[in-house]
Amino acid sequence: MFQTYDDKSDATHSAERLAALRTALKEQNLAGFIVPRADEHQSEYVPPSAERLSWLTGFTGSAGTAIVLADEATLFVDGRYTVQAAAQVDKAAFEVVFIGDKSPTDWLVEKIKEGDRIGFDPWLTTRSQRRSMAAKLENAGAELVALSENPIDLAWSDRPDTPTGAVHLHPDDLAGRSAAEKIAEQKEALAKRRAQAVVLTDPSSIAWLFNIRGSDVPHTPLALSFAIVHQDKAPDLFIDGRKLSNAERDALADLAGLHEPGEFADALRALGKGTKVLYDAAGSAEAVALLVEEGGAEIVEASDPIALPKARKNAAEIAGSRAAHIRDGVAVTRFLAWLDLQPAGSVSEIDAAKKLEEIRTETAELDGSKLEDVSFDSISSTGPNAAMNHYRVTEKSNRTLEAGELYLIDSGAQYRDGTTDITRTVLVGEASSDRLTLYRDRFTRVLKGHIALAMANFPKETSGAQLDVLARTPLWQAGLDFDHGTGHGIGSFLAVHEGPQRIAKSGHVALEPGMIVSNEPGYYRPGDFGIRIENLIVVREPKVPVGGDRPMLSFETISFAPIDRRLISPALLTAAEIAWLDLYHARVRASLSFWPHYTDAERKFLENSCRPIVR
Amino acid sequence: MFQTYDDKSDATHSAERLAALRTALKEQNLAGFIVPRADEHQSEYVPPSAERLSWLTGFTGSAGTAIVLADEATLFVDGRYTVQAAAQVDKAAFEVVFIGDKSPTDWLVEKIKEGDRIGFDPWLTTRSQRRSMAAKLENAGAELVALSENPIDLAWSDRPDTPTGAVHLHPDDLAGRSAAEKIAEQKEALAKRRAQAVVLTDPSSIAWLFNIRGSDVPHTPLALSFAIVHQDKAPDLFIDGRKLSNAERDALADLAGLHEPGEFADALRALGKGTKVLYDAAGSAEAVALLVEEGGAEIVEASDPIALPKARKNAAEIAGSRAAHIRDGVAVTRFLAWLDLQPAGSVSEIDAAKKLEEIRTETAELDGSKLEDVSFDSISSTGPNAAMNHYRVTEKSNRTLEAGELYLIDSGAQYRDGTTDITRTVLVGEASSDRLTLYRDRFTRVLKGHIALAMANFPKETSGAQLDVLARTPLWQAGLDFDHGTGHGIGSFLAVHEGPQRIAKSGHVALEPGMIVSNEPGYYRPGDFGIRIENLIVVREPKVPVGGDRPMLSFETISFAPIDRRLISPALLTAAEIAWLDLYHARVRASLSFWPHYTDAERKFLENSCRPIVR
Repeated sequence: MFQTYDDKSDATHSAERLAALRTALKEQNLAGFIVPRADEHQSEYVPPSAERLSWLTGFTGSAGTAIVLADEATLFVDGRYTVQAAAQVDKAAFEVVFIGDKSPTDWLVEKIKEGDRIGFDPWLTTRSQRRSMAAKLENAGAELVALSENPIDLAWSDRPDTPTGAVHLHPDDLAGRSAAEKIAEQKEALAKRRAQAVVLTDPSSIAWLFNIRGSDVPHTPLALSFAIVHQDKAPDLFIDGRKLSNAERDALADLAGLHEPGEFADALRALGKGTKVLYDAAGSAEAVALLVEEGGAEIVEASDPIALPKARKNAAEIAGSRAAHIRDGVAVTRFLAWLDLQPAGSVSEIDAAKKLEEIRTETAELDGSKLEDVSFDSISSTGPNAAMNHYRVTEKSNRTLEAGELYLIDSGAQYRDGTTDITRTVLVGEASSDRLTLYRDRFTRVLKGHIALAMANFPKETSGAQLDVLARTPLWQAGLDFDHGTGHGIGSFLAVHEGPQRIAKSGHVALEPGMIVSNEPGYYRPGDFGIRIENLIVVREPKVPVGGDRPMLSFETISFAPIDRRLISPALLTAAEIAWLDLYHARVRASLSFWPHYTDAERKFLENSCRPIVR
Repeated sequence: MFQTYDDKSDATHSAERLAALRTALKEQNLAGFIVPRADEHQSEYVPPSAERLSWLTGFTGSAGTAIVLADEATLFVDGRYTVQAAAQVDKAAFEVVFIGDKSPTDWLVEKIKEGDRIGFDPWLTTRSQRRSMAAKLENAGAELVALSENPIDLAWSDRPDTPTGAVHLHPDDLAGRSAAEKIAEQKEALAKRRAQAVVLTDPSSIAWLFNIRGSDVPHTPLALSFAIVHQDKAPDLFIDGRKLSNAERDALADLAGLHEPGEFADALRALGKGTKVLYDAAGSAEAVALLVEEGGAEIVEASDPIALPKARKNAAEIAGSRAAHIRDGVAVTRFLAWLDLQPAGSVSEIDAAKKLEEIRTETAELDGSKLEDVSFDSISSTGPNAAMNHYRVTEKSNRTLEAGELYLIDSGAQYRDGTTDITRTVLVGEASSDRLTLYRDRFTRVLKGHIALAMANFPKETSGAQLDVLARTPLWQAGLDFDHGTGHGIGSFLAVHEGPQRIAKSGHVALEPGMIVSNEPGYYRPGDFGIRIENLIVVREPKVPVGGDRPMLSFETISFAPIDRRLISPALLTAAEIAWLDLYHARVRASLSFWPHYTDAERKFLENSCRPIVR
């Protein structure tokens, strides 16, 4: 199994670790130290060796920042994690603050005195982050100091080794293009920008460029590494040699100079005077820029040049994704069929998550494929737990699915040909008439938003920030909303959250053909229930609609699993929305019914769930 | 009458003026010179003394830039003006380039040689503009040089004097707040930002702050002037004394130090060392920042602090605007009633525009009020002329309204209590069945977009860029679109185009209660017809919709005039859209029918136009 349901949090050592850290700070004449939940690559998933925030505070969430001062320490978390953080930390050691109430920097500015020195680890902080913190601290008369060694690493005696997960080559027929071709394109781009080199620190970018996949962190097939692409010679790849078998090493050696990660710093310094080096200030460690500048080269800020080509999936990647989604849709539908047969009160959130993983594994095997991993910890949540939109079930929080509740399952898979991410919300047993009316109103509004985005036509240069409102209008009109983005990009057998495009207020990158994003509006009633409907959608090539003047982009939905008809109120849908839903269910049935291994019950569930809506 | 219909364009002197300018450039060792259509205040409407671009090129549009090099000269215009510019300029002297094909700077970069010096007038260019141009020129090895005197002014022998239009005080009961109170608030804001002064160069901001209105430029009651607001003493106002009668001078002298504009430069220099001066790099002349820096003070970039409070209309301003809109709605409805009675083929675009101005004047007088000005040159356009969305009728372009055409009239008025802006599109006579089907499809889609925006609920912090898509979706779905923003802000007896909020892709300022914006989607079929439906809408205070969880902002429509029922296809409207339209027409009738001076025909037209839609 690829996921566990224990709470790995341990705050019993927080007080002593905090004391040790404070002693170290005092020795270095530091008034405070900033501990982000980050690694050297600014990845969402980090290896155990980079779980410094968890080691110090006990908090295990995927985002947060602690600030330690001489006589107080605070953990800042976002809205997803306020409840979890409060439960996990030792409150005698750490105060928990919601970053919406106060940002770490604003908090710090209130606490510091003129002349204070505040330490940070430049490997865990981007230049953009440093710049905005430094400006505010300097304004208040304090100084932000880049530390050459992280005091936590010095105090952390049983710190795990950095991972050495095996690397494998991602075949050209799945990648759609050879690594050599991609590298040549990057060299040309450097020439056009009159830059001599670009530094890559995002392991997703490196995986895409060199057509490799790894196994260093959970749920994302990354090989943690750094790279420098040069305009006029082969790139350098800094990767632990133990990750490479001979075949992989030989293939990579044809493309790049191979070096141990320990040689990265010297290589950055060696870029030398008169050299222009592209560097992503919003995505790469400040330490990288400092080392480049130390060597006399000039930093030119530019966003990661791999981000856009990686986001625009080519025909082979889209074909792979389609195949992965059909396989995954069979598994999810079989799971929903299984769940439909279980009596209310007999299945827990963990039971359900385990069953889904088991069915995904079995379905992939019957399909001649393999489940490589889940793409993230499943959000298996019923009743009030589903109202926490990033809930992760543990033995402690585990609830039984009771009659009349809504059960929400957000899950995904990593197959070699594609990464999936899908959410369905279903009614457990029967609900009272009043509850059903409320559920249906909310569920149908979420569905209307989902359909509006799925059906949208839009001209070139339209961004996700512009389209986001389409998914929210049916909720806004009723005084409702949801507190997360409507959609995120997704990788090709890579990270389940991938930029640069988003369907969200902050998504200012234009949507381009081949980009895959999620379409996942929701509704959450705190302490009561949660709803989310998520499919992945691919941006299609522009075409002029019949009778129209101009080419328009649009989306193709590639996730297939029934949407619970019991929760839909047809009276709230327009004729066009019903037509979309009926067509979607017809496509679910057509795409999934080929599978030869269904039980009679599974096949019956599929057929029954995909009937057209009658208004 | 407040507008003329002649083409003031004169390109007969272009060649000789260009030659004189080139001689002057050569003497100063300049390879080129940039001539924007701008004045020292970066206003949309400029006085005749600032019409340098028109003097040089003959082009009379409201936006454009010429670049003059030793052996070529190019005029850059946006999509509104490509046709007009091509018709107005002497093509032997100037090439006309659409700015969407090539920006002036990109064009310049292609033309210049290493070491070239390109001149610009720092009074006609903002710091942001200078910065982006300078970066690209420097990259190409050339230099952007701020000139202390504009060579056009030296060559322009019969240049008109700067205007000295009379200033009057805008009464507190219309402004809603006293100037003294507004100034005190600005001083506090400076203290909070730890800045000693802010420079105001936008005459709209100065008009709002000091509660004055002027008459220096057409269609906007501006008193061209500059101001410096100090943290610790009374502001300084730099205004030509001839604009002030004794009463105005006494009132202003109580609020500010009064100075001639010629003293402004010295006052900027005198701000002196150690002083932090707020300056709007995107809205104020580069010359202002240079003078401040010359005196040793520090420029702190910050957007004009008046922009937001001016945009958020207070209760008195909204009440004034409502009254102005009802008065204006009576006039527009009377005009539509008059037009409805004219036989097709009997009225020209100029006849119609004159009639509307005449009815506005008469209606205001009967109402005990006064039409102070039109708020812009009326866009009175029929058939193919209406497909040019910023068409201005001249004797040369004038067309007769023929049967079967769509006539589009976009116009507005300046009353002391408010500024209006409204567009209606009506069918002239009868159209063939095919034409009517096409008109109705397009008109109804535009109307659906208009209604979607008018009905929108949205949470705090939502920007116009997010809502813009609501007005476009019904067009996008059919492969149609329009090439202008959906809405602009509007002043209180001030500029008809006012920032900072917009309903457009670029409108990133959050909409706040009291802001007024236009709601004006359209559709244009080049060479054939044009459609636009425009009302003004005010952002309401947030409230929780019945049954909802969260407070939502929404819009109140304040423009009242019938929307042509003959052009609506009820089958394309949802029940909610029909309900909106019927309620809107009921409000038009209820708001306008009180007026005691209608003729029977006018009253009958109003009643008939406001009947509910039957599907």
